[in-house]
Amino acid sequence: MSGQPTPDFSFAIRVYYEDTDAGGVVFYANYLKFFERARTEWLRALGVSQEHLKEDQGLMFVVRHTAVDYLAPARLDDRLLIRSTIERLGRVSVDFSQRAFRDPVGAQQEPELVARGRIKVGCVDTTRLRPAEIPPPIRSAFQTQNINDPHS
Amino acid sequence: MSGQPTPDFSFAIRVYYEDTDAGGVVFYANYLKFFERARTEWLRALGVSQEHLKEDQGLMFVVRHTAVDYLAPARLDDRLLIRSTIERLGRVSVDFSQRAFRDPVGAQQEPELVARGRIKVGCVDTTRLRPAEIPPPIRSAFQTQNINDPHS
Amino acid sequence: MSGQPTPDFSFAIRVYYEDTDAGGVVFYANYLKFFERARTEWLRALGVSQEHLKEDQGLMFVVRHTAVDYLAPARLDDRLLIRSTIERLGRVSVDFSQRAFRDPVGAQQEPELVARGRIKVGCVDTTRLRPAEIPPPIRSAFQTQNINDPHS
Amino acid sequence: MSGQPTPDFSFAIRVYYEDTDAGGVVFYANYLKFFERARTEWLRALGVSQEHLKEDQGLMFVVRHTAVDYLAPARLDDRLLIRSTIERLGRVSVDFSQRAFRDPVGAQQEPELVARGRIKVGCVDTTRLRPAEIPPPIRSAFQTQNINDPHS
Repeated sequence: MSGQPTPDFSFAIRVYYEDTDAGGVVFYANYLKFFERARTEWLRALGVSQEHLKEDQGLMFVVRHTAVDYLAPARLDDRLLIRSTIERLGRVSVDFSQRAFRDPVGAQQEPELVARGRIKVGCVDTTRLRPAEIPPPIRSAFQTQNINDPHS
Repeated sequence: MSGQPTPDFSFAIRVYYEDTDAGGVVFYANYLKFFERARTEWLRALGVSQEHLKEDQGLMFVVRHTAVDYLAPARLDDRLLIRSTIERLGRVSVDFSQRAFRDPVGAQQEPELVARGRIKVGCVDTTRLRPAEIPPPIRSAFQTQNINDPHS
Repeated sequence: MSGQPTPDFSFAIRVYYEDTDAGGVVFYANYLKFFERARTEWLRALGVSQEHLKEDQGLMFVVRHTAVDYLAPARLDDRLLIRSTIERLGRVSVDFSQRAFRDPVGAQQEPELVARGRIKVGCVDTTRLRPAEIPPPIRSAFQTQNINDPHS
Repeated sequence: MSGQPTPDFSFAIRVYYEDTDAGGVVFYANYLKFFERARTEWLRALGVSQEHLKEDQGLMFVVRHTAVDYLAPARLDDRLLIRSTIERLGRVSVDFSQRAFRDPVGAQQEPELVARGRIKVGCVDTTRLRPAEIPPPIRSAFQTQNINDPHS
């Protein structure tokens, strides 16, 4: 599209009983968990451990805002592919755009978009929970890398 | 403000270990659970059982969209008050505005707003999950009642 | 039965969508959450805040062992009564016996036992997570009190 | 040991924020989720989809009893290996023995056993939830196969 590649990361998730509710579908709040797993694995693929970030630099990422549309039901045993991109990379926060696609089942040919969200994450110091600058190595990793989950 | 009362419902929630994460605070996704408990108890206070709605009328409410701002951390043992109002009451969907306040601790005098959300809920038939009209008794109950949780 | 009263505590829990799974019933792992809420409220009724215990005395309770029998399904909107007793009160640990009863529905007359568990909880220091003596005030409170949830 | 191989299945799990609590460690109830994911993937590796089992044969597996020892804390970002074996294979139920090992970190050489459980699962018909015979193909698959997660 333009000269710079849009960072993008794909991560696969399987739906287990724990993820479903009595409606027979994935409980909507759990998409926030799926999106977080995908962001965490993206960080890991970039070489960032959140545990080390906390221990060594006294920093952690906290979620400031979430907006999610639930478009179609996902069910037990479904395999979901979470595709994540960065919409805005600020000095102390990042806006992720994340979409959950369900793998095609049987004759159905196209992955179906079941949920999409925009998640705003802020970097804070762990002691006072005040906004802190995203460490430059993480920032530049986000800007330039385009790594996908090898298992997806 | 105007001639018609704004529906409003308050519901108290206690924070347990299950609600927290390694950051020492309530895991953000769990506010969606707190908000749902409050909506459910509002329905119950209006005389609506979701289980009966499903069994007798083949209808259920599904969440279509959630938007939540996380403003301050809540912690283990905190008591949260969820205040819910209706922002828009449509033919097949309702928009709730919900806020979580933390009870004052010690000398702090005012309840603190820790999270606020806007939750869009749709009425669907349980077989095909297609939009269905909100039953008139529920609609009119939402419009006119202003019931609060007796325990809060 | 004997000269000393058996400590006993009752706590009511409502089943929400978040607690259920695609089998249409309460997801079995969630009984551990219900039992923990009941133990926490028992401590609170005895005047013990786990957050203060952590902050002031550097102590916390950790679960060492759980054994649960799932006897009957509980469903959305069910009201469960958790009845908790102490089976054994040791120097550094407590064994709780906890049972979940479902409130009678309709003509059914007796509360139904849906799950029962034995939960062994240990007192540890928060820094090294090593066994620590249960503070005498908590111990004696457990031994002598017989307090019930006023809301149940 | 004897002429017949002991069925055994290994499955890897990563610890995310959603799995932890304010104690800074994995919330103990979540080991039941980890164990269930491992059993589900074992069934899948044997060619059994629980969703199809439900739809096609009107059968599902329900958990009857769980007993878990929590031996050591697991933390954010830890990678756990769940090793599952069958202890007893009955006509209408199976007893699984499952252990969670934490991958060695740094100089520590051996995987550490953090939790172990014994989970009794019963086969039931989906309409009345009464005990039903485990389908022979599943039974014989459990008896003879020794399949491991290719990703672990």
